[in-house]
This record gives sequence, C-alpha cells and structure tokens, in this order.
Amino acid sequence: MKNMSSRKLWGGRFSSKQDEILEAFAESFSFDQRLWKQDLAVLKAHVGMLSKQQILQKAMASKILSALEEIQTEIENGRLPLSGGHEDIHSFIEEALVSRLGEEASAVRIGRSRNDTVVTDLRLFLKDEALKIRKLHHDYLSAFIRLGERYKNWVVPGYTHARKAQPILFPFYTLAQFSQGVRERESLDLALGWSDVSTLGAGALAGTTWPINPELTARQLGFSTSFFNALDAVSDRDFLLAFYFASSLIFTHISRWCEDFIFWSSEGPAYLHLPDALCTGSSLMPQKKNPDPLELLRGKTGRMVGNLFGLFMVMKGLPTGYNRDLQEDKEPLFYSVNVLQQSLLMAVKILDGLSLSKEALTRLWKDDFSLATDLADELVKRGFSFSKAHALAGKTVQYCDEKGKGIKDLSPSEWEKLVPGMNGHAFPNLSVEQSAKGRESKGGTGEKAVERALTDAKVWLKKNKPKE
Amino acid sequence: MKNMSSRKLWGGRFSSKQDEILEAFAESFSFDQRLWKQDLAVLKAHVGMLSKQQILQKAMASKILSALEEIQTEIENGRLPLSGGHEDIHSFIEEALVSRLGEEASAVRIGRSRNDTVVTDLRLFLKDEALKIRKLHHDYLSAFIRLGERYKNWVVPGYTHARKAQPILFPFYTLAQFSQGVRERESLDLALGWSDVSTLGAGALAGTTWPINPELTARQLGFSTSFFNALDAVSDRDFLLAFYFASSLIFTHISRWCEDFIFWSSEGPAYLHLPDALCTGSSLMPQKKNPDPLELLRGKTGRMVGNLFGLFMVMKGLPTGYNRDLQEDKEPLFYSVNVLQQSLLMAVKILDGLSLSKEALTRLWKDDFSLATDLADELVKRGFSFSKAHALAGKTVQYCDEKGKGIKDLSPSEWEKLVPGMNGHAFPNLSVEQSAKGRESKGGTGEKAVERALTDAKVWLKKNKPKE
Amino acid sequence: MKNMSSRKLWGGRFSSKQDEILEAFAESFSFDQRLWKQDLAVLKAHVGMLSKQQILQKAMASKILSALEEIQTEIENGRLPLSGGHEDIHSFIEEALVSRLGEEASAVRIGRSRNDTVVTDLRLFLKDEALKIRKLHHDYLSAFIRLGERYKNWVVPGYTHARKAQPILFPFYTLAQFSQGVRERESLDLALGWSDVSTLGAGALAGTTWPINPELTARQLGFSTSFFNALDAVSDRDFLLAFYFASSLIFTHISRWCEDFIFWSSEGPAYLHLPDALCTGSSLMPQKKNPDPLELLRGKTGRMVGNLFGLFMVMKGLPTGYNRDLQEDKEPLFYSVNVLQQSLLMAVKILDGLSLSKEALTRLWKDDFSLATDLADELVKRGFSFSKAHALAGKTVQYCDEKGKGIKDLSPSEWEKLVPGMNGHAFPNLSVEQSAKGRESKGGTGEKAVERALTDAKVWLKKNKPKE
Amino acid sequence: MKNMSSRKLWGGRFSSKQDEILEAFAESFSFDQRLWKQDLAVLKAHVGMLSKQQILQKAMASKILSALEEIQTEIENGRLPLSGGHEDIHSFIEEALVSRLGEEASAVRIGRSRNDTVVTDLRLFLKDEALKIRKLHHDYLSAFIRLGERYKNWVVPGYTHARKAQPILFPFYTLAQFSQGVRERESLDLALGWSDVSTLGAGALAGTTWPINPELTARQLGFSTSFFNALDAVSDRDFLLAFYFASSLIFTHISRWCEDFIFWSSEGPAYLHLPDALCTGSSLMPQKKNPDPLELLRGKTGRMVGNLFGLFMVMKGLPTGYNRDLQEDKEPLFYSVNVLQQSLLMAVKILDGLSLSKEALTRLWKDDFSLATDLADELVKRGFSFSKAHALAGKTVQYCDEKGKGIKDLSPSEWEKLVPGMNGHAFPNLSVEQSAKGRESKGGTGEKAVERALTDAKVWLKKNKPKE
Repeated sequence: MKNMSSRKLWGGRFSSKQDEILEAFAESFSFDQRLWKQDLAVLKAHVGMLSKQQILQKAMASKILSALEEIQTEIENGRLPLSGGHEDIHSFIEEALVSRLGEEASAVRIGRSRNDTVVTDLRLFLKDEALKIRKLHHDYLSAFIRLGERYKNWVVPGYTHARKAQPILFPFYTLAQFSQGVRERESLDLALGWSDVSTLGAGALAGTTWPINPELTARQLGFSTSFFNALDAVSDRDFLLAFYFASSLIFTHISRWCEDFIFWSSEGPAYLHLPDALCTGSSLMPQKKNPDPLELLRGKTGRMVGNLFGLFMVMKGLPTGYNRDLQEDKEPLFYSVNVLQQSLLMAVKILDGLSLSKEALTRLWKDDFSLATDLADELVKRGFSFSKAHALAGKTVQYCDEKGKGIKDLSPSEWEKLVPGMNGHAFPNLSVEQSAKGRESKGGTGEKAVERALTDAKVWLKKNKPKE
Repeated sequence: MKNMSSRKLWGGRFSSKQDEILEAFAESFSFDQRLWKQDLAVLKAHVGMLSKQQILQKAMASKILSALEEIQTEIENGRLPLSGGHEDIHSFIEEALVSRLGEEASAVRIGRSRNDTVVTDLRLFLKDEALKIRKLHHDYLSAFIRLGERYKNWVVPGYTHARKAQPILFPFYTLAQFSQGVRERESLDLALGWSDVSTLGAGALAGTTWPINPELTARQLGFSTSFFNALDAVSDRDFLLAFYFASSLIFTHISRWCEDFIFWSSEGPAYLHLPDALCTGSSLMPQKKNPDPLELLRGKTGRMVGNLFGLFMVMKGLPTGYNRDLQEDKEPLFYSVNVLQQSLLMAVKILDGLSLSKEALTRLWKDDFSLATDLADELVKRGFSFSKAHALAGKTVQYCDEKGKGIKDLSPSEWEKLVPGMNGHAFPNLSVEQSAKGRESKGGTGEKAVERALTDAKVWLKKNKPKE
Repeated sequence: MKNMSSRKLWGGRFSSKQDEILEAFAESFSFDQRLWKQDLAVLKAHVGMLSKQQILQKAMASKILSALEEIQTEIENGRLPLSGGHEDIHSFIEEALVSRLGEEASAVRIGRSRNDTVVTDLRLFLKDEALKIRKLHHDYLSAFIRLGERYKNWVVPGYTHARKAQPILFPFYTLAQFSQGVRERESLDLALGWSDVSTLGAGALAGTTWPINPELTARQLGFSTSFFNALDAVSDRDFLLAFYFASSLIFTHISRWCEDFIFWSSEGPAYLHLPDALCTGSSLMPQKKNPDPLELLRGKTGRMVGNLFGLFMVMKGLPTGYNRDLQEDKEPLFYSVNVLQQSLLMAVKILDGLSLSKEALTRLWKDDFSLATDLADELVKRGFSFSKAHALAGKTVQYCDEKGKGIKDLSPSEWEKLVPGMNGHAFPNLSVEQSAKGRESKGGTGEKAVERALTDAKVWLKKNKPKE
Repeated sequence: MKNMSSRKLWGGRFSSKQDEILEAFAESFSFDQRLWKQDLAVLKAHVGMLSKQQILQKAMASKILSALEEIQTEIENGRLPLSGGHEDIHSFIEEALVSRLGEEASAVRIGRSRNDTVVTDLRLFLKDEALKIRKLHHDYLSAFIRLGERYKNWVVPGYTHARKAQPILFPFYTLAQFSQGVRERESLDLALGWSDVSTLGAGALAGTTWPINPELTARQLGFSTSFFNALDAVSDRDFLLAFYFASSLIFTHISRWCEDFIFWSSEGPAYLHLPDALCTGSSLMPQKKNPDPLELLRGKTGRMVGNLFGLFMVMKGLPTGYNRDLQEDKEPLFYSVNVLQQSLLMAVKILDGLSLSKEALTRLWKDDFSLATDLADELVKRGFSFSKAHALAGKTVQYCDEKGKGIKDLSPSEWEKLVPGMNGHAFPNLSVEQSAKGRESKGGTGEKAVERALTDAKVWLKKNKPKE
C-alpha cells in the first residue's frame, strides 16, 4: 500500500502549521469516513461532467476515473484502510488520488468546494437510507393491518385516561396505528423530497465561473433535481431537520403503542403476550420475563427527539453561508438512520410475534362498566334528556359498584328503582360485542366500519408501496 | 343576563364534589375560551346534522340553533361575558344553552364527546389561523424578492465562517432566503393538510351507535375531509407537532438572516441600515440605536422550538386514546399563532424598510482578498495544477497582507516573484463586479443566473399565491 | 387620574417616531407589568441609596420616595390601572412619576439602566417565589413520609419493567420519592442561590462613574449579595436556567409517580384509590372516573422542560452583553412559577387523599412469582452455585406457570423433581411479608431498614424546614 | 485465548431462545464495554465485601479476585479482546470468569443485580471523568484571568445589542467570563455530588436478604457515601441530568464568547486575532482564514443541550424502578464527557493563543459615540435633569453623525448651539480611557474595580483548585 500522510486541501497563506489540539478537535475523518462511497460517487460524477463540459481534458478525466475506481476497489477489499490521521474523508480521498496520479489530479477540485461536496455526500447518503426506511416503514404499517386481521373479531377494551372506556374491535386499534402511520409516511416523504436535491456545483457559496453543469451531475448521482440557489445549498440543513422530525414523529407514535403493550401485557390486564423469544430475563430475579424490546423502543424516542433539538439549536442564529458548526450534523444522523432501520424491523417482529389471550379478555369483561355509554344512549332513545340519561347511567354504575354487581345482573326491581318508569324493562341487548360492533359511524369500531377501513388501508398500502 | 353557576358535564356516579384545588388546577376555561367561536360552530354543525339524520327532531334542532345564534351575539356584544369559574368552554356554552332551553338542550351531546369536540375546535382554529399565516408568509417571501430587485446590481460580500468569501449580488442573497422559504411553505402546507380534517363524530374514542354523518359536519365546518379512525382522531396531536415544526423552521431561518443583518448593520461593515423607526434606544446611553426587532425575532426562535419540544414530551409514552395530559396543547398554540403572525408582519416591515449604503460597501472592498478564488481559477486556466494554483494565490494573499496592499496594487515585478513565469502578465480582469456577476453556473450569483432565478421566484409566487 | 400617554426613556438622537408595528411587536408592558411591585421596590432602594451617597439631594429624594409610595397605593387600589399602551413597566412607572413631579424626577435614572433594572426586578420576583416554592416543596416531601407512615406495614409489589419484581413495604416506595426529593431541593437551592444576587448598579454593562453603592441597595432589597461583574450581571440568565432545571427535575419525578399511580389505580392492579373528589368524569361515558390530576401533572412536565430548552436556545450564541432577545425570559417564568406552586399543592392533596386496598393487594399476591429471588437465594444457601440456583428457580416458575400453581402450592414430590436432592424439604418460609421485611441491607425494604430511613427522613425534614 | 460464546445471566424460565433481531437490537456490549474497568472494580469490591461479611468463603473469594486481576491484565494487554457478540459488559466479564473457574464463580452475583451494578459502573465512570473535567475547568477559568492580565490596561468596546455601548477594560470582559464560570463550577459540583454515591447493594430494587455492607463497597470504590434508598438507586439518573445541565451551561457560555470572538476577529472590528495555527483554510478560496475552533465549540452546544433533553424525555413518565429505556443513558454520556474534556483544552489554547491589535482598536475609537453616556452624566452634574441631559447628548450624537464629526471635534460655537448655556465650556475630559477606567462602582470596569476583581478571582482560583 501507498504510504499516506495527512493531506490538507488548503494552507498557502498560512505561516504556521495547524495546532495539534485543534487538529484532533476539528477532524471529522473518524466519523465522516462512513461517507466514502458517496464521496467517490460525487467525484466520479463531477469529473465526468468536467470532461463533458470540456473543462478537463478527456485523457486526464479518464485517468482520474480509473484511479477513483481503483480506490473504491481497494477500500472495499481492505487494501486501502480507512484509518490514519486525516482531516476528513475528502482529503483522504484526494490524497489517495494524488499519490497515484500526482498533483495534476487536484483538478478534481475545479468548480467545486468542500462546502457543496460535503452536503451532497450527506444528501446522497440520506436519500438512499431514507428510501430503505420507506420500505421498512411500509412493512411496518402492513404488519399492523396483518395483526388486525389476525384478531379481526376480537373485542378488546378501548381506553381513555388508561381506564376502560368502551369495547372496541382489535383491528380498530391497529387501524388507529396505521392511521398515524400515514402521516408518518407523509413526513418521511417530505424529508426525502428535501434530500433529493443535488447541491453539487454550488461551490463555496456562489456557484463558479467555470461552465459546469449541475443538472448533469444531479442526474448522474440519481437526484431528481439540483439546487435553486447556491448560497442556500451550502447553508441549509433543513433536509436533516425534516428527517429528524419524521423520526421523532415515528418514535413518538411507537412509544405510545409500546406503552399500551407494556400495560396490556402486565399482570393486571395480561391479555397481550409477547413470546419468550421477545422477552428478556433478570440476572437476579428468576421469574422475570420483561418486555425489553418495547422499553428499548420507547426509550430511543428520547434520543431521536434530542437529535432534532440539537440540530435546531446548532442552526439557530447561524449566519447564512457555511459555518463549521455544521460539522455537528453527521454523527446524530448516522445514529438516527441506524436506529430507525433496526427499530422498524424490531417492531415488525413484535407485531407479528405477539398474541392475545381469549381467556384473559373474558375475565376482563366480567363486572365491567364499559357498557354505561350504551345504557345512556338507550335511555335517550327511550325519551330521557341526554343529561338525565347520563346521570341515571352514572347512578346505575355507582349502585352496581357498591353492590359488586355487573350491569347485566340487575333485577327488574333494581332497574325500576334506578330508572323509574321502565316498568321492568331491562336492557337485554347490552353486550360488549354489540357495543363494539354496533358503532358503525364512519371511522368507528363497528364491524362494517372496520371492514371498510381494513380494505381502504390495504388499498393505500398497495398504492403506496415503494418501488424495489 | 342569566345567572350562571358552573355546570359539569358529568357527575352521576360521583359521591362527592370535586376538590376545589383540583377544580382550579384542572380548569381550562381561562384559556380555552379563546375557542368559543369554534365551539359554537361545531355545535351548530352537529345539531344541523342530528336534525338531518333524524336523530333530533327538527323543532328541537331549530330551537337549539336559534339559542346558539343568540349566545354568539351575546358573547360578541359582551352581554354574555366569558368570565366566571367554568370547567371549560364546552361546559360554559352548554350551561348558557340549558339556562335558555332547559335540560332538553343537552341533546347537543348526543353522538358526541368532549374528546372529539375539543380537538375539532382546535383544528378549526388552527386551520383558519394557518390560512392567514400562509398569506402572511407569501407576503414575506415576496418581500425578499422585492428587496432583491430594489438592489439588483449591488455587489455585497458573500460570507462563509462570518468572513468575506466571494462577492455576490445582493438579490442572490435574498433569493437564498426565498429558497428556504419554499421549504417553509411546504412544511406549513403539511401542517395545514393535517389540520384540515374534521374529527367531529369520533366520540370518546370509538364512534357511536347513533347514525351520525361525520362527512356532513366536516363539509359544514369547511374541512376538506373527516377522520379515518376515531381512536386516532382523539389521540392525535400530530397536526400541532407539524405546525410547531413549521414555525420552528421559519423562525430558525429568521434567526439566521436577523443574525446577518445585525452583523452587517454593526459598526464594522455598516452597509445595511435600519431606519430610525425600526430601531430602539437606550434609557442610559444616548448614542444607541439598537436593532431590537431583529433581536426580538431571533429570540422568539427559542420559545417556538421549546413549544415543539414540549409537545413531543407531552406525547411521548402516552397511552393511545384521550388522556388529560393533552390539555397542555392549547396555550402554546395560541402563543405560537400570535407570534408567528406578528413576526411575519414585522419581518416584512424590516425588509421593506432597510437600505444599503453604497459608500460603506465601496470602503469594504478596498484591500480585500475576496478575489483570491478568481485569481486561483485564472492560474488554473493558465496551466497550473489546482493545488499549485490554490497555493500560489494563498501566498499572494499572504504577501499582500504583510505589505498592506490589495491584490490589484501589485507591480509586475511583484507578480513575477509571486507567480513565476507570468512574464509580467498581471490579472487586469480581477474585480468584485466581474467576480460576482461572472459566476453564471446554475443557481450561482452571476448576473443572468440571478435574473433567471428572480423570474422563477416570481412565477412561483404567482402560482402559490393563497386564495383570498 | 392623570392623563397618561406613552413615555419613552430614549429618543434624543432619533429623527423619526418608532414604527407602530414595531411598537406593538416590542412592547413588554402586557406581561412585565406583573413586576410592578418589584420595579417600585428597586426604584425606592435606588433613590434611597442616591440620597445616602449624596448623588441626589435629600429633598428631591424625599419627594420622589413619597411619589413612589403614592404610585404604589394607587396601583394597589386600582386608581392607577396597569393599562394603556406602554413600552414596559419601567416607562410606565417613570411616566407616573414625572407626571407628578416633572422632569426633575428623571433623576431616578442616574447611575442605572434598564438593563440592570429589569434583571434585578426579575431576580427579586424569582427569589420571593422560589422561597414560597421551597416551603411548598417541603410540604410535598413531608406528604410522602406521612403517606408512608399511614401504610407502614403494607406489602405492595415492587416493580421493574412494569412487572412485579419483589415485594416491598409501601413506605419503602414513598422513601424512594423522598430520596429524589432531596436532590430536587438541592437543585432548587442552587437556583435560589443564583437568584439571590442583586444586579442593581451594573448599569448598562459597565457600572457607572457615579459613586453608587450596590451593596447598600442589595441589602435594602433583601438580597444576600450583589453582583461580581457588571457585564455578567446584565448578560446572564443562568438563575432562570437553574430554576427551569429544578422545575424540570421536579416534574420529571412527578411524572414518574403519576405514571405509577395511574397504573396501580387502573382496573388491573386496582389497589390504589383516588377519592371521587380527585377524579373527573366523562361528558359521554357515565361510568368513567378518570385520574385527571395525575395526568395533568404528568402533562405539565412537557412544558416545563420545553421552557428550559427554549431559554437555552435563546441564550445560545448570544453576544455577551444585553441583547433584546432576553425579553423572551419573562412569560415562561411566570408560567413556570404559577404551575409549580399549583402543582405542589395538588400533589399534596393527592398524596393525602389516596388510599390503598388490602383486598386488592391480597388478590394480587395469589399465584405470584415475586418470591423467586428468595427461592434462588435459599438454594444458594443450600449449596447450589448462583447460576444453578437461578436456573432452578426459573424452571420452578416455568413449571408453576404451566400448571397454574403458586410456588407455595408445590408438593414435596414436585419439589423433588424440580430441585433434586432436597429430599422433600419444601421452603416453608417463603412469603411476601418475609420477603419484603427481610431485605434488611442498608437502604433496603426490610422492616428495620425502612424504620431507620423514615427516622432519617424526618430528621432531614426538620433540619431543612424553610423559615417562615 | 479461551473460546468464548455469548453467556446470558438469565434464562431458566424461558422456553425458547432469544430472537436474533432482538439480540442485535438490545445488546449494549458494543458501547458499554467502555465500562470494563469500572465493572471489574465493582466486582472486586463486591467479592471482597462478600468475603468480609462471611457470605462467601475466603478461599473462593481469593480465587475469584485473582481471576479478576488476570482478566484485567488480559484485557489491558489485548489477550482478552473486547469483541464478539455479548449482551453486555457484565455478561462478558462473568463469562470470562466462569470459563476460568467454573459455575461456582457465579457467586459474584450473590446480593447483587445488573440493575445496581450498571448504575454503579456508570457513577464510577462519571465521578472519575467529572473530577478530570473539574481540573480542566479550573485551568479554563485561570486562562480567562491570565488573558485579562495580559491585556490589563487595554480599552476595548463594551457592547450591548452588538453595538458599541461603553468603553471597557479588556480584563473586565474576561472577568465576566470568569464570573459565569463560577456558576458553571457550582453546577459541575452538583453533578459530581450526585454521582459520588455508590449504588452497589441496591440489588434489583429492594436491597437483599444477604448481610451485605454497602458502605464498605462504597468506601472501597472511593465513593463518599452509599445510597439512601434502593428503589431510588436503581431508578434514578438525576446525576446524569445534572451533568448534562452543567455541560449545557458551560457550552452555552462558551457559545457566547465564541460568538464575540468571531465578531471581533471579523473584517469589521478586526481587533482580535487568532494565530494561523488556530485557524483553518478553505479548499477553494485561497484567502480564507476561518475561525473554525470557535465555530466548532459553538456548534457542539447544540448536541450537549440535545443530550440533556433526550434524557429528560427518556425519563418522563417512566415507572419507578429499573426500565430498559435507561440503557439509552450511556452513549450520550460518553460523547459528552469526551467533548467537554477536548473542548476545555481547545478553549484554553484559544485564550492563550489570541492577541489584540492596538492599531485596530485605535481605528475603532475614531469618530465614536461611546462617550455619549459620559457626556450625559456630565450634563447632569452641570444641572440638567436626567431626561434633558439624555436628550441633549442624543441630539449631539445626531448632529455629529450628520456632520461626520466625533464628539471631541466639536467647536465651542457648535457646543453652544447644541447645549445652550455652556458658554463655550467644552468637555475636555471625555476620553475612552477616562470612561473605561472611571466606572469605579463595585463590579464596574473602573481601573481599581478591575484590579480588585482580578485579585478576588485569583483568590477564588487558589481556594477552589481541585486536588491532584
């Protein structure tokens, strides 16, 4: 292997070497080396364009392109290790190039600056990763629909304030998750759209006097378009903010169903089960089966939102144009991309792996007051004012609670006392199944309403399936 | 006026009165009264629908609708003051209604819950305000283009790292602001789209057994569509998160040009002037003219992003379904909406009011090294390798700096020493105008490039003008 | 009352009036009027000092002090209403003063600036409120000890991962809350210490040439000390950051026990009861008793931490010295102070009002595996290696789970199969009481350990009781 | 080397292997291996205590201690590499131990859990690192005093609103930084105090039935004390929040002086110089010398505060007791500790390396209006009311500004027109030196005031020097 020592892409006007503490403090090679493929792709596109635009001679361009291919191969097979004390990935690669072809090869810098290159590398990286995430996210939404269909007619409690409120069909719950997933997808698409813009050719801030063709390099790199304004191109990190916002939104939603699942699988309700393979034990307490993946998913929310806020704070009050503060944009992105991908995979595992317990659910509905709304509605239908009906149903619940009875166990005489004038008419149709399946208003938990929504969801999933 | 005492919309099953400390702690009337108009609109749409769907008798519906009109008039003319110790705006209005029509009027609650009502009120509020904001934002982006055209051929410094980097045309700078404004608009539109969904008819969480028609009330209220899933409808505050994200983005951008303007109008550069009418003085120091509006705008960024973070934190780990934590969603929204509207107005004032000083700019270019890139590019054209050209230009700058000379003041013999082999060829074409106007690559600061971009911007503004 | 029009404390060098939009945008009178008492106190202390230092003539000082007293009285009794279009509370009060005494009275501004005044007002405000909060916080910590003693010998589940882990005594839980409360107090004290510094006399940024005496005004205003450096004094808002940090810490802790209580009072565990007076019902579902105060407390956490973040973001990158961005410091403070005070009162109500249910707890321990650790420990004592003992106890739990048995119900032959070599020795001492009361290691849940900790806590409370 | 395969510290009750995706998702070995030294120290202290308390036989304890020493040596010299697929550092080390001594060695887990171990490891880590940070921070504050003394009598502009306000002595500025540094130190000490508590012996949550001695292990590990309550010990991460708060505070302050320095070293003021060794160049623009270390320091503020908020969000609403969400606590801590240490070193380099330019400062004071306050004060001394004096000084400035004159250049007749009645008395004593050095009020920029403050600062530094 070639002997490499650290190359700087600047220095002519400096009268002394860079301080060593600064060198260690300022280097980004230890993390931006993850962008080596993107940096090579950018260089190749740029050199190809320089040649086509007759800024660089064909022969020179060919030599450089071959050398870049060689560098790519050597990095891939480990002969050119991404190690050593380099300022950043850009100087690493230019050094590898110049050590092969001599200073002539510094022609790769014509009409280009680190300012536009670094953000193009980053956009290329995020675009590719966000496309993968979009697929994983589609799988994730599909898993909610799959889960809903697996337990299509199961009646489970619907909660408000973490208290049983009204019975619902289980797919009605998974459709709620799907429903917010549609918004997640829109926010991902916003981030993807903002990333999918080539910034190559913006130069340091103002474009260049060389007759470059930014549209050409954009197409070459697979971007949909190129930048509108060079100064914005080098200053802007909105595409990262949008991606962090989408990630924060996805994780905030994840944290909510994880919270639900932790609660439903706990010793009280106990109607949702995670298989052993998705639980973790304790080093001390032999009986423990802990829902660790749910907690880890919930916990990661904090760092995701922390990353969003960190970047907002970096950007706040920054002068327009490139400022070195922007170097702080990379590490949190690598973390967020990794964690989001891993987490969506993990989530699908959980959704496919969990099961509901009929037995536990049956136990749950005993002596339950979730039908009080239905009772009140029935009373309204029988002529009571809404407020009166609500109060009577409330009194009935209070009575049952004191007597330790369920609403369905009340005798005609008790009903007569509780709701005078019913003449012994009980409320024979009150049942959790009736209640859940009867709310047929649009978007409700009713049987047909849910059926329709499942169909709609599947249509959406088909229509919005990312291309392979 | 009717004597009003606080009405509760619940209580049947409770055996004791609510604790007074809790009552004061939990009330939202002191701030959600801002939603009184929305709440009345929702009630009217709901009652109209109940009547149309034959859930409520026409006569009763008419009486209620008249009473609601009466209440609206009385609130507007102050005869029904929004005061007193009420739980929230919903109970205030139901109380006003029942005090007029008796308990029968509680029929307004049929097929409806506070859970769906409150979020419909909020969506109605935000949709209207966001539409106003979209107009103000359009004006704001127009002001950048107007400002750019006012100083169309003016050459100003382009900065990186808060150091003069390359000369640019002033409209090239305002186009950068416009360019990020286009993204702001997309984020606003996302928030608007998520707000523009009626959630009326979701009930407490599961829809209802009454044959309501959520699409009808949605249309009546001016929403584009109604909710897909009732549980999501009552749990979700993504539309607020999206709005706070858009606000945070807008303010983060604002904070950046405010930072630029504070710097450019400071005693050093001093080429940007705010008129006296947009400055503030000191109570102690008679000479001070402070750029207070720029600082206030910059400062508000913190609270905007703080609101976004606050809501993410409220939502994190919340069980699906309505939880009372969500009550914390309103006050920050009212603040954000007010401040965003005020701030966009303020910004337009500033952009229209500022002026540039030719004199200060002329002073600025003296002995300046912003042409070093052009020198290096010229050397590359004369056959030097890029790295050599860059180093030579760097040395030239170092030499000039030591001698206190400008690049243009160098004698042929000095040139010969600095760049051997030039045989006395100087670089006669180097000038800030040439430099700024010559970067004609797409998106660059070149004269034609800027002209094209201004045209594109004006086309965009026309196409994206919000309807009156 | 005197006719008041808006007074500005500056303007000599301005050639035009302030723009109206700016005036509305920049005014702080609508919220900083809350500081009127503090502003008067500061003026009185300042004028007294000016007189004592012979900067102001005694007679003039007396006249001003009388007028300030008069203004105070008039504001208190409503004759001088805090209304109208003023720039801020300082100009409001100076206007009231000058309208009484003429321009001579502007002498109150000698050796003083708004920059030092506003932050002294704010410190005075926060110091007083933080002292009240310290008392409320002491009550709050006392309530945890009181609650623990009310249920001193009650065995409740200790949880990890929201799963029953080991039995604990209930006071052991409340001692955990007390324990984090001690840290809350330290963070409050830090904020209080940083607030308790007078900044009066710092001037605009650099002190003054007048022979003022900042120590004298500090003492007069009840501060422990005065500023060390005038520039720091006007630039710094660390005392607010520290207060927001303390508030965020307190609320983060509150959110955790609220989460516990919501879970323990839910239909599953159901062993913690909030009285009706501390619950709220539903406008739709008659059966609902919701733990609203717990949710409201949890929800407020988001805004508290949002305020902390917002201020950090305001401060980030701000040049040293006063900048108008700092005006954003007030509203969130007023909110935080109010909410913290209300919330601590609310929390005490909850802690004093809740009750535990013996019956529900008994039900909970049936067929429970919380004794598995004790079984493993016992096996270690009988000679098994720790990992073997842990595995055997784990297998035993698995066996019991499959058979639907409790650990205590196993027959000698089952034990022999599960733990070979025990020769039919069962484990007669395993019991939740034994388990909870037996963990006598320091800081553990053991009976004596808890007794000692309660005593220590009471000693701490006595020692750290804020003075009346 | 021993053949190692992944050991789990649990599993007896599990009927299937852990899912592979979960294993990869949940592992923490890839980052918590940084705690290997701490984990070994904890194990050694624990085993020593078990032996002393006669829970473990002396012989066994000796064997284990020797093996732990051996493991330490092998990790240090690379024979036992920290690699492979392990769950966490705890299982890695137990595996290494058991592979040497057999299952007997699992006795190290007696009376201990991962829950208390992991947080003790973390506390040990943070305590040591925070002690180093305290020293670096002391050096950092010393550097401000050293810098102030290097330019003791230099008059520089004091700013408000980024506008020259009043002349100050340069050490007055560095004393302002020192002054906020004293608060930083207090916040660091709070974090250190909260970290300096051993949590070993808390077990899973409730202590243990074994007669362990937490005080003994605390002393052995160098902690000042041990936990008060076991449940708090395993649930709590306040010590990290306090550390992140301190870091956020330090960086927020750093971001402010970096902002100052970037501005003062920019082409306008240009009186502060960073040496070439502390600047960075551009890959494109040969003339650039960018203040990169200042920008990097400023930029890191975002991530520091982001980490604080991330952790607050993780903690919000978490049930009391250990939850796996807490695993998210480690990576941001490692980042924060590294960056804080590096950054304080970098800051000292900058403070020691920068220089001021007499020439640039002289240029700056020409035609400057920073003496307007002194003029107004002088007018008050000559009998004008404060508001009149302020207005006259303002008019004078306006006049000078229009005429392009400095205040000192006004002729007696001009003075007479501007300030009638002065009878030609000019203001001969007005000078920036007089102004800066004359503000002798306590904490002011006056010569003696600064001298006293420098002395006080040096006394503080001596008194608060961390022990070696």
